[in-house]
Amino acid sequence: MAERDRVEPGALIPTGTYVAFDLGDPVLVAAAWSRLAEPGDLAADAVVSALGARPALELVLSGAPVTEPRLAAAVRRWRTRMPGLDPAADVALLTSLGGVLLHRGDARWPESLLDLGNTQPHCLWVRGNPALLAAAADGGIAVVGARASTAYGEHVAADLVAALAAEGRVIVSGGAFGIDAVAHRVALASGGATVAVMAGGPDRFYPAAHHELLQRVAREGCVVAEVPPGCPPTRFRFLTRNRLIAALPTACVVVEAGWRSGTLSTANHATSLLRPVGAVPGAVTSAASAGCHRLIREGQAVCVCDAEQVRELLEPVEVERLAEPEPGRATGVPAGLPDREQRAWDALPVRGTGTLESVARAAGFTVTETRAALGRLVLQGHAAETAGRYRRTPRP
Amino acid sequence: MAERDRVEPGALIPTGTYVAFDLGDPVLVAAAWSRLAEPGDLAADAVVSALGARPALELVLSGAPVTEPRLAAAVRRWRTRMPGLDPAADVALLTSLGGVLLHRGDARWPESLLDLGNTQPHCLWVRGNPALLAAAADGGIAVVGARASTAYGEHVAADLVAALAAEGRVIVSGGAFGIDAVAHRVALASGGATVAVMAGGPDRFYPAAHHELLQRVAREGCVVAEVPPGCPPTRFRFLTRNRLIAALPTACVVVEAGWRSGTLSTANHATSLLRPVGAVPGAVTSAASAGCHRLIREGQAVCVCDAEQVRELLEPVEVERLAEPEPGRATGVPAGLPDREQRAWDALPVRGTGTLESVARAAGFTVTETRAALGRLVLQGHAAETAGRYRRTPRP
Repeated sequence: MAERDRVEPGALIPTGTYVAFDLGDPVLVAAAWSRLAEPGDLAADAVVSALGARPALELVLSGAPVTEPRLAAAVRRWRTRMPGLDPAADVALLTSLGGVLLHRGDARWPESLLDLGNTQPHCLWVRGNPALLAAAADGGIAVVGARASTAYGEHVAADLVAALAAEGRVIVSGGAFGIDAVAHRVALASGGATVAVMAGGPDRFYPAAHHELLQRVAREGCVVAEVPPGCPPTRFRFLTRNRLIAALPTACVVVEAGWRSGTLSTANHATSLLRPVGAVPGAVTSAASAGCHRLIREGQAVCVCDAEQVRELLEPVEVERLAEPEPGRATGVPAGLPDREQRAWDALPVRGTGTLESVARAAGFTVTETRAALGRLVLQGHAAETAGRYRRTPRP
Repeated sequence: MAERDRVEPGALIPTGTYVAFDLGDPVLVAAAWSRLAEPGDLAADAVVSALGARPALELVLSGAPVTEPRLAAAVRRWRTRMPGLDPAADVALLTSLGGVLLHRGDARWPESLLDLGNTQPHCLWVRGNPALLAAAADGGIAVVGARASTAYGEHVAADLVAALAAEGRVIVSGGAFGIDAVAHRVALASGGATVAVMAGGPDRFYPAAHHELLQRVAREGCVVAEVPPGCPPTRFRFLTRNRLIAALPTACVVVEAGWRSGTLSTANHATSLLRPVGAVPGAVTSAASAGCHRLIREGQAVCVCDAEQVRELLEPVEVERLAEPEPGRATGVPAGLPDREQRAWDALPVRGTGTLESVARAAGFTVTETRAALGRLVLQGHAAETAGRYRRTPRP
């Protein structure tokens, strides 16, 4: 128990409830949080954000009484998981599998997950190439769909993925039977990159029948989990896992989905994250397409029939990306603008138009500040507005 | 040539160019116009609207010089068709086939065609029950689609039509191979009403292979043409005919259509006429569904998968229809409104909301008058407005 001495608030820790570890190591602190709190536990995010991951964890581990009633309930919940807590062993197991743990502060942490706000994972248990997680945000596509897929759906999924993976887009999916499996397999077969997001721990490839497929994804692509080794993929974890499938890539395409398919939860997450969603239509006589038609009818998804139409789905996003100032591309920039107008102008897409919200996001302004700055640009003739969409005006 | 004396401006008419007829009979005047001017001839509509059908026809028949250059060109065009013009014989032929000619002034003229404005036909050559033409506007559906339909499309068309025809909705289509034929056949088999709109004359059932089907539609439903007997169905007439298929019923459903299908022209007409358009999705691997997916992607059509969803398509229109004042249903009517506000209030839907345009249409006001009247109703608390849609406010 020599390691125990390294834990600073040692005196307060009930003996034997957990295995001591280095609280100074942010990797282990994050690993501990991912063991104590279920994915999407808002109280855990709140306390970590307020106190910092380590002080918050120390509070839990210390066994000290907590008086604030709601926090007390959460701390009680986390403390039930303290017996046997051993993040160093968890991380060692991951390492033995060739994996690596990313915590929120890691330079390799995928920025796309910031969009999840207070449901961001504490860490990612990664097997394979962690760079694919950030790469997914650069035009990557979630290709998801029914486990009970039809030959039609698998055929269309294969066509889409072959074309999209071949042009370097990361294909993200959930490793399940049906459309997910086709997405991973065809991405690998096309020499492309693919990420499988697990609902259980990184050592728990699920379903068992996909053990070999997921081994191959881990070897040539990336398998990622937000819960630590040994955690089974519960129904709840499938649903929370879906938000990661939606958040990591730029857009989401649903190939087949029943009327009440779990796949629709991924589409819903993508919509709330402002990711474009596409759905592939099929025969109205096929139950496996009912969820896709539902998404299209309800205006939540765009009807996509081929890879070209999936690319069109990305266009507004990719046009926005072009708006980031590029050195040496300053032709047509109006001269002598005040700082705020300059930033708003920079945030306007080089081609096409942007909404007040997209410009605000790109400029890092509030919507009110953006409206004011764009209004001045419009008055000065540097920008124009039509039906709530703003664009740069051509310079002579 | 005794009949000739009945033509008043007889002295000016070049001898022998047409067979004399009673210019006092609006049926024969309309029949003559439908022979002289091609469907959609805007000059013919302009001159008929400006002078009246009979004086305008007299001008043409008189052979008198016309100096206004654009009118002169049109008159020259119509005069080329004068030789052999014999509207009385045309109408007699129609009558011998058991048909009847409706002119714009006929009480049985379908009001829905008024929406066509200056492309309204001069008359309708009707075989069968002319009442179905007006009935089509009361929840009737155009069911149209590819001639090169697939078993899938025919199956879905049959399902939709069986359900919609059985509830008394008139099914309008074009009598062509493929989806059109299924629509007519299944409507008849379901004991429902169906209207076939021909591109050629009323004696020219096209295609020839559908002679028996169209005979049956004429016997149990209605076959209608806007060109006189003997006219062949030219390519141009197919396209102009499509506007009638779109205009007669309340909504339009495209079951299958290729990427450049002529069916899309019917959908385009329906859209410009503010008729709701639905399109049935299918496999993205089926060329026969490409046009449907195109309509859905471009936001021109709502994705419809079954008869229930076709009915939903009609809902906004049917809610508007409920706004027509019904005797004995005056509960909640604000008392003592000035005439103009009363008419605007009457024109608001009983349930749901209406746009400025729909209320204007229902009230028979201009948009400006409607805006003023609704504004006063809103100020007085009798109506409310949200995002450009107006509704009645509940009465205590």
